[in-house]
Amino acid sequence: MQEQTEIFEWPVTVYYEDTDAGGVVYHSNYLKFFERARTELLRTIGVSQQTLLEQNIGFVVRHMDIDFLQGARLDDHLVVKTSIAELKKASLTFCQEIVNPVGQILCKAMVKVACIDNKKMRPKAMPQSIVMELTQSDR
Amino acid sequence: MQEQTEIFEWPVTVYYEDTDAGGVVYHSNYLKFFERARTELLRTIGVSQQTLLEQNIGFVVRHMDIDFLQGARLDDHLVVKTSIAELKKASLTFCQEIVNPVGQILCKAMVKVACIDNKKMRPKAMPQSIVMELTQSDR
Amino acid sequence: MQEQTEIFEWPVTVYYEDTDAGGVVYHSNYLKFFERARTELLRTIGVSQQTLLEQNIGFVVRHMDIDFLQGARLDDHLVVKTSIAELKKASLTFCQEIVNPVGQILCKAMVKVACIDNKKMRPKAMPQSIVMELTQSDR
Amino acid sequence: MQEQTEIFEWPVTVYYEDTDAGGVVYHSNYLKFFERARTELLRTIGVSQQTLLEQNIGFVVRHMDIDFLQGARLDDHLVVKTSIAELKKASLTFCQEIVNPVGQILCKAMVKVACIDNKKMRPKAMPQSIVMELTQSDR
Repeated sequence: MQEQTEIFEWPVTVYYEDTDAGGVVYHSNYLKFFERARTELLRTIGVSQQTLLEQNIGFVVRHMDIDFLQGARLDDHLVVKTSIAELKKASLTFCQEIVNPVGQILCKAMVKVACIDNKKMRPKAMPQSIVMELTQSDR
Repeated sequence: MQEQTEIFEWPVTVYYEDTDAGGVVYHSNYLKFFERARTELLRTIGVSQQTLLEQNIGFVVRHMDIDFLQGARLDDHLVVKTSIAELKKASLTFCQEIVNPVGQILCKAMVKVACIDNKKMRPKAMPQSIVMELTQSDR
Repeated sequence: MQEQTEIFEWPVTVYYEDTDAGGVVYHSNYLKFFERARTELLRTIGVSQQTLLEQNIGFVVRHMDIDFLQGARLDDHLVVKTSIAELKKASLTFCQEIVNPVGQILCKAMVKVACIDNKKMRPKAMPQSIVMELTQSDR
Repeated sequence: MQEQTEIFEWPVTVYYEDTDAGGVVYHSNYLKFFERARTELLRTIGVSQQTLLEQNIGFVVRHMDIDFLQGARLDDHLVVKTSIAELKKASLTFCQEIVNPVGQILCKAMVKVACIDNKKMRPKAMPQSIVMELTQSDR
């Protein structure tokens, strides 16, 4: 049986920098919002990407499947909802949604992130401490 | 039988703005490269997005399925290869790849773009002239 | 005698999206941090840029003088300090600094912003309500 | 007597990614256009920033004085005009303008760039080969 995963929420405000001439958020900028939320989720379990970077460990996005459902507008206060869908030895799949204040989903994505050795650009098993924290935060 | 689709090639150079602290192109920036190539493909058949915008017609990305296979680096000269995988009344699906000078595919995506009325944010049939051009350029 | 102006502080976290291959924040991204802070300062006095945009009023940057003193790094928690240096009928000059947690100034700028009519792209007197709020918040 | 400096021209096209909800290019994106042009100017004299980066040498922007005169729009074909205003042992000042097809200056800047040791984040004399090329290209 699949256990219920905790959902991590991270707020994002839409600034001019995020919008385009169509009057809404430029599509690739949702990926930045998703990444901020993943970074903050990792931070809550004690993972600093700068520290990992200094050890030549990086998390890189390998695959994304994204639905852009509705455009967000300037000044919108959004929430990025993130949960971990799958945890493997050298990769992690996140399920992410961006919702507006009335609860509409504007954008959703499945994001597969791999742990790599930044020098060799090769897959690398995630540090055990991270795996343990991620497993525990599931409870 | 599926007819062979023409492949449109557009060059992209990697600048500092495109990279991140991991030393490679930040993942969401590949989406910008893909969009430049789609814009230029449309330009070759006479479609100006600024003109469409003034008529409140916009092309918005609805769905993307992306594989990030290998990182591009500063100063890399890449080519975005784009073909039209599917043409519907109010949407268009592009098949896109980013390749490096030795022919390795760094990133590939299926991108579904919808034609919308920018004021109402509703789907809209593509202008007939565009459909005709897209159909002809397939030959 | 010059009266002491209130300083508005806005926190900014550095994510991968902000950095470049040099390992620090890409220089133009400090301008985004400055703009977020100006937007939030305006929000505290009740100004919504989306509402202004719907009235075809925009604030556009006309001039910037920027010193890039030191690079910020991934995961840095910065503070943008903003005060109003000059208030005119159709323009506003901000004095802004980005400081790191130990109080070092990483970047500082004088930013002149003009109020314009977005359709005509012409200067426009700032709405009286904004001028009043800005004058009062100086006390 | 001041000798006449060569002007380097680099074309830039405005895509959706560059614009904002005001309908024009977002102000900080002109800095990206300026940087692409400086990179290409350096490339014409044989300087590869990726090669420099591998030697831990970086060019970082230290100071910018920018006038934003007029907004560029989606699909605009612009030209960035760049000349070297001053050449010192460890720094370089560029004079840059962005002009539209009818010759109007949209944005202009004086940009001081320093040569640094990327590890120590300290100023460093420019490689002699670069200085020679820059001096020769002035003739």
